[in-house]
Amino acid sequence: MNSVYRNNEVSLTRGLQGDLRELTSSYPDDKIFLIYESNTWEHCHSYIQGFRKIPEDHILILNPGEEQKRIEQVIHVWDAFGSLGIDRHSLIINIGGGMLTDLGGFAASTLKRGLAFINIPTTLLAMVDASVGGKTGVNFRGLKNEVGVIRQPLHVLILLPFLRTLDPDNLLSGFAEMLKAGLIADGGLWDQLRGFDLSGYNEEQFGKLIWRSVEIKKAIVEADPEEQGIRKALNFGHTVGHALESEALRQEHPVPHGFAVAWGMITEAMLSHKQLGLPPESVYMIRDTIQSLYGHPPAQLTDPDRLLSWMKFDKKNTGDRINFTLLEKIGKCRVNCTVSEEEIREVMSDE
Amino acid sequence: MNSVYRNNEVSLTRGLQGDLRELTSSYPDDKIFLIYESNTWEHCHSYIQGFRKIPEDHILILNPGEEQKRIEQVIHVWDAFGSLGIDRHSLIINIGGGMLTDLGGFAASTLKRGLAFINIPTTLLAMVDASVGGKTGVNFRGLKNEVGVIRQPLHVLILLPFLRTLDPDNLLSGFAEMLKAGLIADGGLWDQLRGFDLSGYNEEQFGKLIWRSVEIKKAIVEADPEEQGIRKALNFGHTVGHALESEALRQEHPVPHGFAVAWGMITEAMLSHKQLGLPPESVYMIRDTIQSLYGHPPAQLTDPDRLLSWMKFDKKNTGDRINFTLLEKIGKCRVNCTVSEEEIREVMSDE
Repeated sequence: MNSVYRNNEVSLTRGLQGDLRELTSSYPDDKIFLIYESNTWEHCHSYIQGFRKIPEDHILILNPGEEQKRIEQVIHVWDAFGSLGIDRHSLIINIGGGMLTDLGGFAASTLKRGLAFINIPTTLLAMVDASVGGKTGVNFRGLKNEVGVIRQPLHVLILLPFLRTLDPDNLLSGFAEMLKAGLIADGGLWDQLRGFDLSGYNEEQFGKLIWRSVEIKKAIVEADPEEQGIRKALNFGHTVGHALESEALRQEHPVPHGFAVAWGMITEAMLSHKQLGLPPESVYMIRDTIQSLYGHPPAQLTDPDRLLSWMKFDKKNTGDRINFTLLEKIGKCRVNCTVSEEEIREVMSDE
Repeated sequence: MNSVYRNNEVSLTRGLQGDLRELTSSYPDDKIFLIYESNTWEHCHSYIQGFRKIPEDHILILNPGEEQKRIEQVIHVWDAFGSLGIDRHSLIINIGGGMLTDLGGFAASTLKRGLAFINIPTTLLAMVDASVGGKTGVNFRGLKNEVGVIRQPLHVLILLPFLRTLDPDNLLSGFAEMLKAGLIADGGLWDQLRGFDLSGYNEEQFGKLIWRSVEIKKAIVEADPEEQGIRKALNFGHTVGHALESEALRQEHPVPHGFAVAWGMITEAMLSHKQLGLPPESVYMIRDTIQSLYGHPPAQLTDPDRLLSWMKFDKKNTGDRINFTLLEKIGKCRVNCTVSEEEIREVMSDE
């Protein structure tokens, strides 16, 4: 047991190999299969290799990048592992960012009607967001996560030193989901994150904040695994954020997910003021904090007509009004706030 | 309410359209999507059309046949319905045999991380077996149901008149799973089935026996949804049956699933005698009943070496011994009976 923090589903660990040995102890070496992206293979494999005597051909290395997150790659995984005799008593370990854990989780969840899998997220975003909650899947017809299932991994192992290999934008992208966790559920966490220096952080302190974010997400997901109600709390910042992301993709200048969410949180904080009376000083604090970290969204992304048409297209909306999760105050949110197009336009023109 | 029999998940109905209207009442017409096979479209659509005003392009008609049960067809469903704006609040209705309900169920279970679906089985096998228990999936790399998930349909609607369009072999194939249900769990059902005249049956009587078979399967599945233990009861006849089926496929002379299971039940009844003391008179009764309905397996399928190699390859086995579900007596089974190759050979040479 080398974990610093641990619950039934997630560990923040100092000794990855020891934890991995413990978690996989009921699986023979030749029933274990690994999936890397080529960059996590390069940077992270040395932390993992040797934890067990895994046959070399049981390691699959996929090309990185969101555009690789597609069904053809899943078929490739089924095919490669199937031809090596993977069976119902096998285990798949996914090592990579959210693209890889989503894709590998989906491949495992659908092979022989569901194999066990362990996720080892290697980006901050995957650690605090993609690896918790059991969402798996791939993009399809240009739509994010159009195809997938919800299935919990056997375990998620978080190793902080992996973050050292990330560039600052990549760190910031994950940090936005931590800010969101604070805003929707824990004002104390928000305050700590606001004062946190990402460029020269202490790993132990950062680990504590990451763990708190994971706990918040986990508690919300467990209260609503099928996304019927309270899980929508996690959508704060994402209604506008997804629209920004989709528009950026359309213009072929993608922005990191967390940046889009961060900018979305500014607009949605202003909406929260109008709809739920979030105090102006909270709105300003949110805006200033986010702008000092993420700057402003590129001007060509902020056309209200285009953003609104993306929001109306979003799979989470029904009918004419747009569904938001908004803040009553910092640390407390309300789901299913439906807002008219006009009200959204008004806020956008105030920005 | 037009159902003759009904529980939360399955109805045996006299009024398909009324039940369908009731079950789909919370879905607008334009959120309902239908999948047929071309033969069920031809024979069964008249029973269903007009139950609601479904847009015509929401009806997808797939080619029939087990060789169509593959991932490319699932992608076709995702694509066709996705481009028509199917969303998380939509419902898919699958009308067909086991191939179609398995494939359509998998497509629904994986689109947008899981849509609701209703199965309307049109063969006896699909009514008593494929439609209950939530197994969905497709064949892959030549392996049956290699890819899939377990997910319960919103409801299964059984309409007996669909059986009138089936040829006798098709009826017999489903009947074998009913015989199995009696043998593993209900000696009274077995006795009734043994005396039942399939060639000139009374629909009301047959409905009663079908419903009893469905109830048995449902009770076993509910006790063990993830197939960890008692669900293996349903495998009686299937260890040898799958081997016969695979060998027949390899020789490019496929046999109907139920025929293979029926012949498998003879061998496994003999094994039950050796291993668990099933009385000889029960073995003879099982053998005579099955042979009078299904005849003998083609001689070219019964090579013990080939059958044993298929059994060892079966995804349900671990290690050297083969895992069987065997009978203690008619109406009572025991799972996880492991048997050596030698003991199986001995029984096969006695046949």
